[in-house]
Amino acid sequence: MRLSRYYIPTLKEDPADAEVVSHKLLMRAGMIRKLTSGIYNYLPLGLRSINKVATIVREEMDRAGAMEVLMPMVQPADLWVETGRWDYYGKELLRLNDRNGRDYCLGPTHEEVITDLVRGEINSYKQLPVNLYQIQTKFRDEIRPRFGLMRGREFIMKDAYSFDKDEEGAEKSYFEMFEAYKKAFSRIGLRFKPVQADSGAIGGDFSHEFMVLADTGEDTIASCLSCEFGANLEKAKVAAPAGEDMTNADCPAIEEVDTPGQHTVEEVCKYLGVDPSKLVKTLLFVVDDEPVAALVRGDRELNDIKLRNLVGGNEIELADEELVKKLTNAPVGFAGPSGLDKDVPIYADHELCAATDWVAGANKGDTHVKHLSLGRDCTIEKFADLRVIEPTDPCPECGGKIEFTKGIEVGHVFKLGVKYSEKMEATFLDENGKPKPLIMGCYGIGVSRIMASAIEQNNDENGCCFPPSIAPFEVCLIALGGKDQAVTDKAEELYSSIKGLGVDAAYDDRKERPGVKFAEADLIGYPMQLVLGGKGLKNGIVEAKDRKTGEKIELPLDGFVEAFTAWRKEIWNNWGLEVK
Amino acid sequence: MRLSRYYIPTLKEDPADAEVVSHKLLMRAGMIRKLTSGIYNYLPLGLRSINKVATIVREEMDRAGAMEVLMPMVQPADLWVETGRWDYYGKELLRLNDRNGRDYCLGPTHEEVITDLVRGEINSYKQLPVNLYQIQTKFRDEIRPRFGLMRGREFIMKDAYSFDKDEEGAEKSYFEMFEAYKKAFSRIGLRFKPVQADSGAIGGDFSHEFMVLADTGEDTIASCLSCEFGANLEKAKVAAPAGEDMTNADCPAIEEVDTPGQHTVEEVCKYLGVDPSKLVKTLLFVVDDEPVAALVRGDRELNDIKLRNLVGGNEIELADEELVKKLTNAPVGFAGPSGLDKDVPIYADHELCAATDWVAGANKGDTHVKHLSLGRDCTIEKFADLRVIEPTDPCPECGGKIEFTKGIEVGHVFKLGVKYSEKMEATFLDENGKPKPLIMGCYGIGVSRIMASAIEQNNDENGCCFPPSIAPFEVCLIALGGKDQAVTDKAEELYSSIKGLGVDAAYDDRKERPGVKFAEADLIGYPMQLVLGGKGLKNGIVEAKDRKTGEKIELPLDGFVEAFTAWRKEIWNNWGLEVK
Repeated sequence: MRLSRYYIPTLKEDPADAEVVSHKLLMRAGMIRKLTSGIYNYLPLGLRSINKVATIVREEMDRAGAMEVLMPMVQPADLWVETGRWDYYGKELLRLNDRNGRDYCLGPTHEEVITDLVRGEINSYKQLPVNLYQIQTKFRDEIRPRFGLMRGREFIMKDAYSFDKDEEGAEKSYFEMFEAYKKAFSRIGLRFKPVQADSGAIGGDFSHEFMVLADTGEDTIASCLSCEFGANLEKAKVAAPAGEDMTNADCPAIEEVDTPGQHTVEEVCKYLGVDPSKLVKTLLFVVDDEPVAALVRGDRELNDIKLRNLVGGNEIELADEELVKKLTNAPVGFAGPSGLDKDVPIYADHELCAATDWVAGANKGDTHVKHLSLGRDCTIEKFADLRVIEPTDPCPECGGKIEFTKGIEVGHVFKLGVKYSEKMEATFLDENGKPKPLIMGCYGIGVSRIMASAIEQNNDENGCCFPPSIAPFEVCLIALGGKDQAVTDKAEELYSSIKGLGVDAAYDDRKERPGVKFAEADLIGYPMQLVLGGKGLKNGIVEAKDRKTGEKIELPLDGFVEAFTAWRKEIWNNWGLEVK
Repeated sequence: MRLSRYYIPTLKEDPADAEVVSHKLLMRAGMIRKLTSGIYNYLPLGLRSINKVATIVREEMDRAGAMEVLMPMVQPADLWVETGRWDYYGKELLRLNDRNGRDYCLGPTHEEVITDLVRGEINSYKQLPVNLYQIQTKFRDEIRPRFGLMRGREFIMKDAYSFDKDEEGAEKSYFEMFEAYKKAFSRIGLRFKPVQADSGAIGGDFSHEFMVLADTGEDTIASCLSCEFGANLEKAKVAAPAGEDMTNADCPAIEEVDTPGQHTVEEVCKYLGVDPSKLVKTLLFVVDDEPVAALVRGDRELNDIKLRNLVGGNEIELADEELVKKLTNAPVGFAGPSGLDKDVPIYADHELCAATDWVAGANKGDTHVKHLSLGRDCTIEKFADLRVIEPTDPCPECGGKIEFTKGIEVGHVFKLGVKYSEKMEATFLDENGKPKPLIMGCYGIGVSRIMASAIEQNNDENGCCFPPSIAPFEVCLIALGGKDQAVTDKAEELYSSIKGLGVDAAYDDRKERPGVKFAEADLIGYPMQLVLGGKGLKNGIVEAKDRKTGEKIELPLDGFVEAFTAWRKEIWNNWGLEVK
């Protein structure tokens, strides 16, 4: 592509609202433009990169035997009512009415539509397994769209849905997708890690997220340094405490103590002169309109997703001040398990089994209790893993050392089971002629988010460093001929040679100063830069720069094709990629 | 692709709601499925065809120098308010609110978004021309979605937008797109005709539609048998009448006559014993809330789009009964130009200049007038071309003979001029440093509709006859081996050979009866069918059938590749296409 005829509106300054590097660089490099909050236009350069991501994903889906379809963006409410998600999904589901007042939503995901599509068409086990995917525009009305393409409202996603006749088949389909994802992300050139994840609004039996490792990631991953274990912090199990169960161990009689004006764990512990690990923190939540209490040690953080999953609810939020007062007869800060409203079930983190003689709130203003025994002084509904893992915790699988890293979720695979097929009566006849619900899996890749996370992972002070597999153009040839026709002629010849190799090349033939051309090539982040000037032409060389390392070498003009081909192979290999 | 592993849910019966053949066949061949009114899923086979259409369109856009972008589906209302189309567009524009109550619409077209995208980025004449296109999902909330993909609500469209610095450049861009469209439609294998068209809601200076010729088309085209003239009926000019202007010619005094209960032209003419060509038909409309009257000869049909364009309004509709009574002091059926409410401007078809002494309504119940002179007895705002052309009219350009045919609109090009750029202040600095509005064109192709119209144009009682360029698969190899391993082995070998040629092949390796395989291959409409059976294998031949003509030949197994290649070339050529 000749850049003199190409539309790349670069920006000199970072846009004011851009908080993360990918957002800044995608804007500055003329690859995207904001239309409105969380909604972006993809400009020619940005779309080229997106399309390369999509092509790799499509190839790996096809290779894994999935078949491409295209489902609508506008979905009728009826289907969402069938699965109960019309109520459950919350405000991220953008609802609308057509001219006749009928209810629709913009698809944030397509479980309902795909299940509707196959029910009635897949009737027999003989037709299974089937795996259908699409690459399509989705909409989620995020409460706080931010970070450019990282958390947009309208975005491009690949979503696949598998249908199997039994659990064995469903797990096979799941792990085929798992492997296809690993191949796709590897081919894109991302450093990533699959981790155990919570299923969230999609639901189902179990799931994994694929995390691109980047310091700027919104998610935290706990990984084991010894074994394969990796999990999103919201999901990561915490090993049950070793040693004896002390719940019903001897403990002095419970006793109230005055703690005037001491609300926080820190204040209470300081006032009473005890360590936070000796205090039971009592948190009150509302899960699907029902109040529940959760206990963790004073020095730990509750994981509300674990609590929600334990309770078996959909929506969880902290109780408001009014409810806390009603349940505890006290201001916020004095809740405790003993003497709490009898109707509130109490769930305790399993770590609390490992000791007794606790300090806790007394459900009374300015008062706490000492010598609390969870076995004697209150009724615990259940002890379970309820807290957020910490870097000092052992690996829940092998006991090894844990490390925390930051990641960006770019893929998510779910073993759905029969969650949707049962509700929507999507059944087939098995080998014995008996109707059974289809066993489903669903599998998502954030196509537009991948471009952004590739930049989060690969950039420097001068701009993007795209992996060659998904760069808008793999190579940029910069001609510094000015009015020197010999340089222009030679540059044209090189451009033809490179295109002749089937390489995706940009040719900067613009009448711009060399400095502008260099800076823009770095900003856009073409993995390979070739620079031809008058001096080089005289010496029979073209300068070749590896954008990622900054390393420069000289390629001979005589025998250029061979030298370029070898250099190109090296660049790809340095990225851990096979040249196409 | 092995059909044993492919998802093609064919149907034995026509769906009840399918009125046109493409809708029936796309459903029956397992290519699309309805999600809800006017909204369809594209199944694997259908999406393959759509993608081939998109690829050809994309190649021709790129070849013409347009650059691909991708704009959002959800668009903020502000931009539509800027151009006035938020009010103008009517109910086809599906409006919605996000979680914060802000107004948005689903994009039925992208003039506002693209103009917003380039304003501020294109500042200088040096950056022009620019042509940006996208292939994207659009939504129009049609009042009566029907005919499957022919008039859906959610559909796939290619839309391009050109920006030029002057009229000359804008016309060049327009005709470059015009030529690119001709190439694209030719390569797709459609019989089509570009015709003059009305600009409708898009507006602008002038436009052409590209019509696929098919008896089932919703549009009527007037074409000249002698010259290049072709126009959509709603646009087709009618030549001004030859001869003297008789408006003010001598005419007996106007005179009221009783016409009790005679409302229609037919009734009145019969009752008074005059020919309908001697009567002036008076039609009352409301254009943007203002009443207007239009006159045409009793035997002619008024073209309301011509009237709307003449008046310069946006929305036009017939006056209701109440308004007619108010303006004429009479029931419906007795309106006339003489004695009509003075505030209603009267527009007359220019044919009415050619005579005088008319019969017309008297604006009085059960009464008409005779001897009406339009020059003497009323005030005509303007005489202009206001009626629908008829097959007996001469060509408005050369006077030759006109023919009417039916067509399906698959493309539309608009010379927009400054309609959007002025309203949205999208300006650039010209050679003299003066700000000027960008001169725009816009260009649409109905990608999903093309697949349907290809079927409307090419089908028979057995199913679709796809052009090879956009068939889901170009060739279907049918193995009739049953348990004969030698046939299966040979079929596998042929399948490999065909794939080795880069030909897109389906291989029917299913355990189905031959009759089922033949019927489905015909239904789906693979342009080429190859049938290998035990007998053929023994005789060293494979049967080759041209789906379109039904012609069968035998290809030798010995030297298959050469024979197949030659036959394939012939098939493509018979479609008027060059083999890829």
